[in-house]
Amino acid sequence: MAFLVKKYGGTSVGTVERIKSVAKQLQAAHQAGDDIVVVVSAMSGETNRLVALAREMMPAVVDVRELDVLLATGEQVTIALLSMALKELGVDARSYTGSQVRILTDSSHSKARILDIDQTPILEDIKQRRIVVVAGFQGVNENGDITTLGRGGSDTSAVALAAALKCDECQIYTDVDGVYTTDPRVESRARRLDKITFEEMLEMASLGSKVLQIRAVEFAGKYNVPLRVLSSFEPGEGTLITYDDEENQMEQALVSGIAFNRDEAQITVVGVADKPGIAYSILGPIADLNIEVDVILQNIGENGLTDFTFTVHRDEYQRVLDFLNGRLADIGAQSITGDNRIVKLSLIGVGMRSHAGIASRMFKVLAENNINLRMITTSEIKISVVIDENFLELGVRSLHEEFGLDGAPDVS
Amino acid sequence: MAFLVKKYGGTSVGTVERIKSVAKQLQAAHQAGDDIVVVVSAMSGETNRLVALAREMMPAVVDVRELDVLLATGEQVTIALLSMALKELGVDARSYTGSQVRILTDSSHSKARILDIDQTPILEDIKQRRIVVVAGFQGVNENGDITTLGRGGSDTSAVALAAALKCDECQIYTDVDGVYTTDPRVESRARRLDKITFEEMLEMASLGSKVLQIRAVEFAGKYNVPLRVLSSFEPGEGTLITYDDEENQMEQALVSGIAFNRDEAQITVVGVADKPGIAYSILGPIADLNIEVDVILQNIGENGLTDFTFTVHRDEYQRVLDFLNGRLADIGAQSITGDNRIVKLSLIGVGMRSHAGIASRMFKVLAENNINLRMITTSEIKISVVIDENFLELGVRSLHEEFGLDGAPDVS
Repeated sequence: MAFLVKKYGGTSVGTVERIKSVAKQLQAAHQAGDDIVVVVSAMSGETNRLVALAREMMPAVVDVRELDVLLATGEQVTIALLSMALKELGVDARSYTGSQVRILTDSSHSKARILDIDQTPILEDIKQRRIVVVAGFQGVNENGDITTLGRGGSDTSAVALAAALKCDECQIYTDVDGVYTTDPRVESRARRLDKITFEEMLEMASLGSKVLQIRAVEFAGKYNVPLRVLSSFEPGEGTLITYDDEENQMEQALVSGIAFNRDEAQITVVGVADKPGIAYSILGPIADLNIEVDVILQNIGENGLTDFTFTVHRDEYQRVLDFLNGRLADIGAQSITGDNRIVKLSLIGVGMRSHAGIASRMFKVLAENNINLRMITTSEIKISVVIDENFLELGVRSLHEEFGLDGAPDVS
Repeated sequence: MAFLVKKYGGTSVGTVERIKSVAKQLQAAHQAGDDIVVVVSAMSGETNRLVALAREMMPAVVDVRELDVLLATGEQVTIALLSMALKELGVDARSYTGSQVRILTDSSHSKARILDIDQTPILEDIKQRRIVVVAGFQGVNENGDITTLGRGGSDTSAVALAAALKCDECQIYTDVDGVYTTDPRVESRARRLDKITFEEMLEMASLGSKVLQIRAVEFAGKYNVPLRVLSSFEPGEGTLITYDDEENQMEQALVSGIAFNRDEAQITVVGVADKPGIAYSILGPIADLNIEVDVILQNIGENGLTDFTFTVHRDEYQRVLDFLNGRLADIGAQSITGDNRIVKLSLIGVGMRSHAGIASRMFKVLAENNINLRMITTSEIKISVVIDENFLELGVRSLHEEFGLDGAPDVS
């Protein structure tokens, strides 16, 4: 018997049948005694359909206030249908839009931040043993305008509700049954983690693991809301994401997982003057183009000249190359080179904090497999290397074995 | 330069292209100096799609609170798209859901009544020369629950807004270019009326003319809001519906129009006791079945027995027949007869009030054409007869000619 927020994404509520199946799961948990607030997304495909309609209306720049009014209908449909499905099963339920539950946000349409949530009506419903069904992704600003939290914002809605209502857990139902040591499509011996820390999860998410939205993980960490990732389609305990538990520190694995990102491309500005301000003169104009830069690396200069290397999303590769080639003289560089067939591979684990030598073990294994490292960056709980994309699978598998991640899935 | 509410129904905003075309019409009126509040319905087909989804969830009885949450998304999509289309044309616009504009209603989900409208935000927008785009058909109750006004309720929303905002006119755009003396598909010489009174329009509507919702006409009459019916697709002055203008009383036509209803069926309970309470004993149980009865007629009894005749919707004909046949003994009737191939034909005109002899002229013309009258009912401004459906066209045409309704459309 716990007080839970359960969040189901677009795929989990993508059809009438799936919504009915979610209702049955909720009914079972409710009958077992749990108090439940459900957060749902729009049925899969719906948001894309609405965005396409908006584009037909305003091909150049879509009005964000009206776009939010439009998109908010997606989740509103789901909350009504799920509440109906619950009532059909004899479970009392009540739906709330973001405006109704009063998820108060700022006025940044399409990427609003949650400021406050009115708990009173929900707690009253819970007292009446109702399942409360809340539209994810949406809120309302002080003027009563509908706002949205940005794509995937339903995770954030769920965590914010769990924090405001002081729930025992925020459970995110998705199409995978938890967080894995690495992508099982690359390494079949990848194993589901029972537990992982917020920090590790943040690194996993920022490195391309699509299980959870970064913002939701940050939010959960900030308000210390235990997050659990579970499958909508199969039973199981999933993966619990919490703060590092001091007691378990002793048995903490060195490395929790291996993440990778195939979406990157590397660009090198060759032979620029090794002087203050050079990074800004290169990256400032790129930021102005609204292009995000990931890894940045500047070699030690020689003869007053240096090379400056960074990675961008692969989709932006050609654009950045062209842009910089057109600015060679301004930058004072000799040439621009690049490679869009690279990947970033990262070892993640809070255990790195207290254990030396992990980086050298990593580099040794990669060297034994003849994998050339093009860039290296490290943080307290992560070591990332940029390598040729052909070596991705080999790299993942050799590191997975080296750091003892192989095994059958945990049964807890 | 006038302050107008303009309402566009589902067909008028049924596609992206039509919404763009409505936006262009609005732009033109706005540029000509009109202040405009637009009320829109859901895109045609959308409400039916949503109702079908709800039926899949709750096949037996749909939860009305959640149905309203679901259906309200239909208009919400349209207001966002129309506002976008206006902005794309460079016209400042702002959308409001029923909750946002605060169309306060009672809590009768799916058939809510409007109690109050908050005019402040709209008048502020109008002052800023914005076009205000309001979702029709929906409101909000005191608890913040979404309500709907029932099918076709967008007309009512439009009239209520025009009344609250004290607009000069409420213009209802539809797929016909006005109110006609009769259905042009039956009588090609039917002529568009420039003007008609609220009372006449109410009779027309209740007798099957689908141009306007009865409730909207009642509402407009009650608050004396001039209503105008116009075509969404062709230019024109349409038909203005107002109170009877004393000055024009002199030239008032005797008869304004001929309405008919093909959806009726007649049922006669033969040989019941001619005593108090018999009407209730027959119609009470039928009302309990939620079946509406239209014309009711009881003949003068003979030998203490009488026949009791009434009409119901043709779809309910067999059900009512079966039901009454099963209750013959309870009612104390000899038999039940009926006919589902009848129609109701009505002459409508405020001129009837001050002119005698219209009924007899009507009956004479019908007799000359060998049309047998099965039932007759009259009101102050209407005479209805029930006739065999085969004679509908002949009846309409002969009356149309007799009462001088033939002619080319008015040009005003």
